[in-house]
Amino acid sequence: MNLQNKTLLFNRSSFENLLDMNDYINAVAHAHKLHAQGNIIETNIIHADAPNGEYHVKTGGLIGENSYYGLKANGGFFKNQRDYNLPNILGVIYLSDASNAYPLAIFESSLISKMRTAAATAVAAKYLKPKGPICLSIIGYGSQAKAHIEALLCVCDIQSIKISGRNSVKAKNFAKEMDSKLSISVISDSIENACKSSNILITCTPSTEAFVKTEWITSGKFIGAIGADSPGKNELEPAIMKSARIIGDIKSQIIKVGESQHAINNGMISPDDIYGELGELITGKIKGRSSDAELFIYDSTGTAIQDIACAAYIYEKLKDSNQITEIDLFK
Amino acid sequence: MNLQNKTLLFNRSSFENLLDMNDYINAVAHAHKLHAQGNIIETNIIHADAPNGEYHVKTGGLIGENSYYGLKANGGFFKNQRDYNLPNILGVIYLSDASNAYPLAIFESSLISKMRTAAATAVAAKYLKPKGPICLSIIGYGSQAKAHIEALLCVCDIQSIKISGRNSVKAKNFAKEMDSKLSISVISDSIENACKSSNILITCTPSTEAFVKTEWITSGKFIGAIGADSPGKNELEPAIMKSARIIGDIKSQIIKVGESQHAINNGMISPDDIYGELGELITGKIKGRSSDAELFIYDSTGTAIQDIACAAYIYEKLKDSNQITEIDLFK
Repeated sequence: MNLQNKTLLFNRSSFENLLDMNDYINAVAHAHKLHAQGNIIETNIIHADAPNGEYHVKTGGLIGENSYYGLKANGGFFKNQRDYNLPNILGVIYLSDASNAYPLAIFESSLISKMRTAAATAVAAKYLKPKGPICLSIIGYGSQAKAHIEALLCVCDIQSIKISGRNSVKAKNFAKEMDSKLSISVISDSIENACKSSNILITCTPSTEAFVKTEWITSGKFIGAIGADSPGKNELEPAIMKSARIIGDIKSQIIKVGESQHAINNGMISPDDIYGELGELITGKIKGRSSDAELFIYDSTGTAIQDIACAAYIYEKLKDSNQITEIDLFK
Repeated sequence: MNLQNKTLLFNRSSFENLLDMNDYINAVAHAHKLHAQGNIIETNIIHADAPNGEYHVKTGGLIGENSYYGLKANGGFFKNQRDYNLPNILGVIYLSDASNAYPLAIFESSLISKMRTAAATAVAAKYLKPKGPICLSIIGYGSQAKAHIEALLCVCDIQSIKISGRNSVKAKNFAKEMDSKLSISVISDSIENACKSSNILITCTPSTEAFVKTEWITSGKFIGAIGADSPGKNELEPAIMKSARIIGDIKSQIIKVGESQHAINNGMISPDDIYGELGELITGKIKGRSSDAELFIYDSTGTAIQDIACAAYIYEKLKDSNQITEIDLFK
């Protein structure tokens, strides 16, 4: 309950260096635990086309000791970088106190979006990773690739990292950059070798065609299928889904817009074949890995409750700092 | 197009005294003109129940010389005043530049909500009011009653005002308050007398039962039916709608949640009997009043494009003022 008569404005630098990936992992785990317990305020999505781009508004809330409701209002304007030197995806997260709707805070959205997605994969990996040292392969070299390395380092004993992707020069450059920053060896390799040699495989590309072949995937792995989060996006051959235990962030989303959509649309699996949701792993309603042979896929589509949970975490951590711009909107 | 790298935060006092009702009338007329021309970004609504209240998120945008997209995120928490000394309905309006999604501004929402609703009625009254001096009656004594007097004074030659409502003491007190502020006589009277003696009648109550009787309404009036904006809310007997030319703010809304819902649900009128929309009056696609005998009803349900248009108007007027709190969200 807010009795402070102030709304806080968080720009990137106000929280970027004051939280680390473990904070986001805690916040996202909290969100999915509440989701499994039914303690959320309904999530929803609005889409609208603008002349040069499109808007997505994602809403949702969390009911707990402190309850929050909010939204992420993002635009996707794919000429922004070129025309305006602005991010192509940009917007705000709005957080309110769900006990009385008081406007608590506004945040720049892209940093939280990036961190929460990787943090959710790390939560899944905690329960689903193979025993022993991890050989991590990442297909993709964008901001999610970097965030996933950071997130998985928090929950796994990673021995080596391979980077791959459609553009081998970009993969090589990104591997070099990471290799120079980390004490672990980071090299680039072919997609085939990266898939075969890893026991954790993360796919985080905007691909609309499956590039991970069924024959490359042996039992025992944990795969984070991150890229597919809208109709048509696709990274894994659907047969891989058939042989795996699939955990979704939100089941109702992954069957429509996640990696699972293709295996379901092909009739290779049915929605009932989905093993469960992230929150059910956390609450113990479903078991995590219990044998070395199991193949687990975490199907990630993203949800407003992850954004709201991270925003609330940042708000609670920094609300009494005097470094945050504030305003009394009702004055 | 925004090249200033700043997001503005408008609290109430930052714009309350710098704009008058004519500004809101201009902004709302602009919104509905663009609506009639098809120059809007799709509007949409999300509703979500919270444990002690409910949230409404209304989205939409305007395409013009400057294009805007945004939303109003409001909570309705009807114990707020009692429990927290907070408004029962509260939230924010978010405005972005629809050419690149840049976050332009955040506003406290209730002042804009109040002003834009009354401003829209004034726009309708411009085209639909009777000739000659106006005897205005207002059924209701809340913030919309006051805003409607202010708005109609901008567009009508008002000779006298009557106030009425279910609670005659409240009506009397409000009439006294207004009488002391205005140079025009303001008295309270019964609902029947208020209806019969007026040539402009505004109903702005939360009623769910028709209190304006058919036999009280003669031809020649302009009625602003403001209160009914959700399923079940009702102020006029449906037979009144049958004998009137109905103008809606947004036709698709009024047939579902406006005053028109009841006459349509009863089969007394069909959606095709709706005469037109506010924007069509402004663009001249439909005619306003052409005879003293016509009975016009303006059916008001409210729309995000009114909020966004007012927010954009305020933003454009005050963006270069150095009195507004600002932040570079991307820094």
